[in-house]
Amino acid sequence: MPVAPGKPVPTEGPQETGGNPRAGAPVGATHPLTDGPTNVRLAQYDAEVKASFDRIVPVLKEIASHRYAPDFTERARRLARDTLGVELPDHLLDDAWVAGIDMRRLFGWCVFASYHRASDAFYANDPLGGRDDPAFQRFLLDCGFHLMDVTPCADGRLAHAISYVLRLPYGNVRRKSYAGSLFDIENTVEKWVETELQRFREGVPNTADAPTRYLKTVIYHFSSVDPSHQGCAAHGSDDEAAARAGWERLEGFRQAIENGFCCGASVDLLLIGMDTDTDAIRVHVPDAAGRCDLHRWLHARDLYDATAHMTQQQARAHLTEAVRAHAAGTDGAGRPAPGPARRGLGRKGPATVPAGGPAEGMVALIARLIENNISQIDLVRQMHAGRYQDTGHAERFIGAGIGFEEIQLRNLTYFAYLNTVEEGAADLDVGIRIFSGLNVSHGLPVPVVVRHDYHGSVPGARQRAVGHVDRIAAALLARYPQLVAQGLLHVLRVVRDCDAAHPIEIVGSTLEPAAAEH
Amino acid sequence: MPVAPGKPVPTEGPQETGGNPRAGAPVGATHPLTDGPTNVRLAQYDAEVKASFDRIVPVLKEIASHRYAPDFTERARRLARDTLGVELPDHLLDDAWVAGIDMRRLFGWCVFASYHRASDAFYANDPLGGRDDPAFQRFLLDCGFHLMDVTPCADGRLAHAISYVLRLPYGNVRRKSYAGSLFDIENTVEKWVETELQRFREGVPNTADAPTRYLKTVIYHFSSVDPSHQGCAAHGSDDEAAARAGWERLEGFRQAIENGFCCGASVDLLLIGMDTDTDAIRVHVPDAAGRCDLHRWLHARDLYDATAHMTQQQARAHLTEAVRAHAAGTDGAGRPAPGPARRGLGRKGPATVPAGGPAEGMVALIARLIENNISQIDLVRQMHAGRYQDTGHAERFIGAGIGFEEIQLRNLTYFAYLNTVEEGAADLDVGIRIFSGLNVSHGLPVPVVVRHDYHGSVPGARQRAVGHVDRIAAALLARYPQLVAQGLLHVLRVVRDCDAAHPIEIVGSTLEPAAAEH
Ligand SMILES: [Zn+2]
Ligand SMILES: [Zn+2]
Ligand SMILES: [Zn+2]
Ligand SMILES: [Zn+2]
Repeated sequence: MPVAPGKPVPTEGPQETGGNPRAGAPVGATHPLTDGPTNVRLAQYDAEVKASFDRIVPVLKEIASHRYAPDFTERARRLARDTLGVELPDHLLDDAWVAGIDMRRLFGWCVFASYHRASDAFYANDPLGGRDDPAFQRFLLDCGFHLMDVTPCADGRLAHAISYVLRLPYGNVRRKSYAGSLFDIENTVEKWVETELQRFREGVPNTADAPTRYLKTVIYHFSSVDPSHQGCAAHGSDDEAAARAGWERLEGFRQAIENGFCCGASVDLLLIGMDTDTDAIRVHVPDAAGRCDLHRWLHARDLYDATAHMTQQQARAHLTEAVRAHAAGTDGAGRPAPGPARRGLGRKGPATVPAGGPAEGMVALIARLIENNISQIDLVRQMHAGRYQDTGHAERFIGAGIGFEEIQLRNLTYFAYLNTVEEGAADLDVGIRIFSGLNVSHGLPVPVVVRHDYHGSVPGARQRAVGHVDRIAAALLARYPQLVAQGLLHVLRVVRDCDAAHPIEIVGSTLEPAAAEH
Repeated sequence: MPVAPGKPVPTEGPQETGGNPRAGAPVGATHPLTDGPTNVRLAQYDAEVKASFDRIVPVLKEIASHRYAPDFTERARRLARDTLGVELPDHLLDDAWVAGIDMRRLFGWCVFASYHRASDAFYANDPLGGRDDPAFQRFLLDCGFHLMDVTPCADGRLAHAISYVLRLPYGNVRRKSYAGSLFDIENTVEKWVETELQRFREGVPNTADAPTRYLKTVIYHFSSVDPSHQGCAAHGSDDEAAARAGWERLEGFRQAIENGFCCGASVDLLLIGMDTDTDAIRVHVPDAAGRCDLHRWLHARDLYDATAHMTQQQARAHLTEAVRAHAAGTDGAGRPAPGPARRGLGRKGPATVPAGGPAEGMVALIARLIENNISQIDLVRQMHAGRYQDTGHAERFIGAGIGFEEIQLRNLTYFAYLNTVEEGAADLDVGIRIFSGLNVSHGLPVPVVVRHDYHGSVPGARQRAVGHVDRIAAALLARYPQLVAQGLLHVLRVVRDCDAAHPIEIVGSTLEPAAAEH
């Protein structure tokens, strides 16, 4: 371990990060529960996509060095095609001989083209294999949950939380990222209503009389390497504040359901913390009443160590027992905590559960999440020497709007979930500040992908989605006029029909020829 | 009738309109179906509320005339209290002796105070008696509809559409106003989902197996006095365009439901036109397949004339027969139109209906709407000499945001339904332009009430609603900096818990003492 604990690792510009020399070749011993083949596949996918972005600056430097060559245009085009797989358009090259080459525009073009290619490949090939996993859906139902809805922080270092950290099929889990993990309660109630109606009307994924629940999960985060600087910016890098705020939001959601709907309506809640340096999670195991203790958790790293020398079977049994024993409100020996249970009626779970512990389904789900996370801990140990080199921000572009299902990679995208710049201004300002350090300080523009997904089955929905991205892009450019004036902000406008596995559709960008924009 | 058809009636400033000398004393013969006592009550309520706004300018003129009196502050306070029922605060009067009196701020204060009083009276006394009418809810269910959802244009001349023009209990009808009646399909689908789930889970208002439907209604508008100038601004005063756009949106909603949900999910649709000069409606009676003809309608004014000399019983029978015979696609004799019915399966309605006509429930509802409208036609004939004097805009303030259930009066409020200034900018610009003519041209400020209703049962909802109005107010002031600099734009911030009959809560305004705002 070359990195001393507590010492911040300096963050480089995007061009230098991600080019990890170890990528692609896992070495050393792994945990018996680690899924080695999947680790190799996931690490390769991550390395390939990031490399396609991180090659851009070196190639553009090479292109710039040919600027006085008589066949510059041809050389530039060939270099970009051969090394980046990107076609440079005439209108960005033709005037180079008289006006000089606008490297900022070329950089923006290459970033957007790389995003477009990665996105197309994702929808065409499903490289993570997570589009639909019926076995996981059955497992979830067996655990007593008909939908798992996860809110990680919008921080780019959690963008891989579903597919890597928890190893869940992204197509069977709802992901909705928010700054500080502070999800929108009203929006989540809407999703709950929609889910319940589908159970009633269509029996999907199960009928409404089945005693399963909607499971809402929050993932907050912290940094073991530099706890006071590289934690969650939305909570001032204060782990305890991040956990408390996440739990308050979860409880608010449960109260909204219980108060707003009769007939014993309720939901289950789960609070998870994540170390963004190692990807190890810690789980605040809820008690039988659905409460959790903010000061106690089960750490996957500890369980990794405790089970590293067991057989698979022994290790799995140990995980399950550890979760069952650790329930908040019990003292580890399974004795219930004092005080009345918050919710008595309708509580499911077999009689074999210790009085204060969670239902067996919750135990099984948490044990599975920890087992899955052990693979990711090994991936980080093997591919990144135990801890990521980029402890801080190293995103390649900003994603603003609604959608981005294909972004499942760590530190690729700073994500600002928003309907309007007016509402999302604070998150966007943070993103622009991050990219002022990452890009602008090196003379490179901030690339922003503005996105709005829509349901193609709703008449006019595509047209309205195009209207949304146009409006958001205009408001974004209006908010940062100085960056725009200096050519340091570029925006790609994208929509997608999310009713099927359609690819994205590019509807415009600030890099089109001036005439084409009007 | 002193007004020649086609000749625009000049619109005066808000201080001169609404002081109709005839108000409060209905005269002349009325239609046998007209509800005289209700007409008197509705006309009085309208006249009283508007008078409370229209007294403001004369009283402020009187106050201004005392500006050099040694006891000015005391006189001003007494005048406002005695004539307007408004308490003028110290911070708007104390410095008048040295800085002069800021009549613009006093005007804004009085408008906001009058709005506050009218709103409180509405929630306290239910002056329209429309908060809940179980008999209407039963009638609607008998007609085959479990919810009636109406979108009038956001134009202030349609703000009384539910309570006056259609005489429906506002508490039993969903009203959602949009510019040009172009309602949000996604939002309406959400409401449909919520409504269906309530039927499944709670059996409210009836159980989901009952063959009733969600009825979505659009009211577009036109002007009989000045058709080419005083129609719907959003459609360039083109009636046909307004009707077509409304119907397209309705069909879009139906397709969204039919495509997005299986098991024969559908909705019923109704398109109504409204003459903003006489409040007479015209109904595009749908055929058995749920289609309507944009070029044929049943005009309440014609039916008023045809039934004016009948008994009540004869008149009601005539209305029902006229609706049944007029179904779109039939030729009046009840013969079906050629071509296949659009929706065959699951179509309800007894066998006695002519092949091409609508279900009997739809016939009964439309007949009821026309009967109700006859009362309103008489109200306008008697109180306003047949046609409103204010054919154009004469709103007293702008209402921006979500809520305003208590605004049920014509031309009181220009309504901009919005979540953000970014999305609602076009509607707001229209409102500001209207008030530039009504107020700014007379040196008076534009009063804007920014409002956000919330569900008190959802934890944190009030706090978020306050955050919303603060954000919207800030964005609004930022959008019109010149008006702000001249003291010509004032904003009141209001929230309301809509889970009960709570009054509004004022959370701030641009007229507070500077210190109190921070
Ligand atoms: Zn965070
Ligand atoms: Zn504790
Ligand atoms: Zn209109
Ligand atoms: Zn026609």
